[in-house]
Amino acid sequence: MSTTMSTKILCKDAEATALKLRLDTGLRVRLAARSNEYTKSTSGLAPTYLQANLVVLPSRYAADFRGLCARNPVPCPLIAESSSVGNYSSLKSYLPRLSTSSQLAAGLDLRTDCPRYNVYDGSRLSKAGVSAVTDEWTDDHVAFLIGCSHCFESALECAGFTVRHSVQDRTVPIYRTSVPLNPSGIFTGSTYVVSMRPFPKKDIERVREITRAYAPTHGEPLAWGWDALARLGIADIDLPQWGDAPLTEDGQQPLGTLVGDDNNVPVFWGCGVTPQEAIMKAPLEGTILAHAPGHMLVLDCREDDVL
Amino acid sequence: MSTTMSTKILCKDAEATALKLRLDTGLRVRLAARSNEYTKSTSGLAPTYLQANLVVLPSRYAADFRGLCARNPVPCPLIAESSSVGNYSSLKSYLPRLSTSSQLAAGLDLRTDCPRYNVYDGSRLSKAGVSAVTDEWTDDHVAFLIGCSHCFESALECAGFTVRHSVQDRTVPIYRTSVPLNPSGIFTGSTYVVSMRPFPKKDIERVREITRAYAPTHGEPLAWGWDALARLGIADIDLPQWGDAPLTEDGQQPLGTLVGDDNNVPVFWGCGVTPQEAIMKAPLEGTILAHAPGHMLVLDCREDDVL
Repeated sequence: MSTTMSTKILCKDAEATALKLRLDTGLRVRLAARSNEYTKSTSGLAPTYLQANLVVLPSRYAADFRGLCARNPVPCPLIAESSSVGNYSSLKSYLPRLSTSSQLAAGLDLRTDCPRYNVYDGSRLSKAGVSAVTDEWTDDHVAFLIGCSHCFESALECAGFTVRHSVQDRTVPIYRTSVPLNPSGIFTGSTYVVSMRPFPKKDIERVREITRAYAPTHGEPLAWGWDALARLGIADIDLPQWGDAPLTEDGQQPLGTLVGDDNNVPVFWGCGVTPQEAIMKAPLEGTILAHAPGHMLVLDCREDDVL
Repeated sequence: MSTTMSTKILCKDAEATALKLRLDTGLRVRLAARSNEYTKSTSGLAPTYLQANLVVLPSRYAADFRGLCARNPVPCPLIAESSSVGNYSSLKSYLPRLSTSSQLAAGLDLRTDCPRYNVYDGSRLSKAGVSAVTDEWTDDHVAFLIGCSHCFESALECAGFTVRHSVQDRTVPIYRTSVPLNPSGIFTGSTYVVSMRPFPKKDIERVREITRAYAPTHGEPLAWGWDALARLGIADIDLPQWGDAPLTEDGQQPLGTLVGDDNNVPVFWGCGVTPQEAIMKAPLEGTILAHAPGHMLVLDCREDDVL
């Protein structure tokens, strides 16, 4: 690499870092996403601001999807939806402490305010990672915002716990399970999807306690222990279906080399990929929109507002 | 049997029938239970009035139990709780359409208004079928009312469907499953308990649709089909853990003689025994109170008020 090119890359990195630092509120992230000034993952952006998964469905599926969330609140915590069919700028909140749309996200445009989107034709991905869905949005679409686990991870870090994938700069490992979701209308036959973070056995009760309060963002773990893998129908801890494979604390070995170890006990939470899976498995027709993985909608409210 | 004795029995039956007919509102049932004029099962009493399962816990377990219901709303639909710790006469409603305690049950006394109660010392049954728990109730107790399936059974009957155990004058069969509950605090390691009603395969979508609306009383089925037994971990349809074994339509054979039959497909709903099981499995201490099985609390609101 020539010195000139290397300097250019360094400059670009410095610019990117400066931009990231400037995106310190939900509103700033949304505006930068809207103008395409920012089109990357929202991980680490606007600390303490609540981030949400976005799912947009044709209105004929809205009641069944609302029911799916109501019947499976641990993996599918619904925090808000379009205030009316076709509305991309105003939300109905399900968070008890935040009643108005502007408390959630002022001046919102759900068609542009995620950094990246995926577009599906039924269950077939038709466009990956587009920067806006203005052309795809119709007056028959209904948006749903689902809580995400960034929220309780921050709380764990504040309490002095190490969230391993985070310090190792990896993506949280995510697994399909055999635990059935409670079906709702057209959404049948799906199962829980879970995320995993390892903790020492002695810390698990405290980890449960800290995350319990964050009910709209999955709340406390749904299972823990090496024996939980069998109960959840997870064949191999080293082969997550999404995210990066988990590692030992020193980052040198797969976590599966420590099966049974009390200092590295897998702890499983409900995961927002669950409703996406349920949608992909259902025989839906029409245009479905979602944020691209990791490119979430960042809100104006704070993580502690879900408490 | 002598003619005199037979006449006496007939008179007694006629009296009992007359009493049942007079108990045509929730209030009348509660007052008759309070005075011990009526001490039998509430099945068939006060048609259209909402009946509820009662669980009363020491206050230190209240938050965890509330969380258990919130995280598992299909088998544990919480419809109300004591408006404050120790309160046996006023309820906080979780039904969206009924906000005041008096809309649920005017002049309530939770210590006397079920026809029969069970008393537990921790998880040990210490008194079965007592007519009041006035002496056991303390100012540290919190009562929880959980929805029950009578509600959607009425709706199915109104729509012209046969609820088989009901026309056969038997108790609905209830099964333990291997599907894990989402844990909440001290309530860990429990599984769903489900009730079963057989329907012809062609009717299942309509049965799902009718019961879907009754979200606070378990809502739509959580599984259906002969293959659902394996998914739920139910070993034998003819050996329910509670209630009566299910029969063929003519009442002559166990339902299990028809495995695979499309006219007798098992349909499973979440069951209010689930929270009772979770309580019995948890390492609780102190005095726990509950209605005796079948001897429910009858409310002033109507079944359709949960819609």
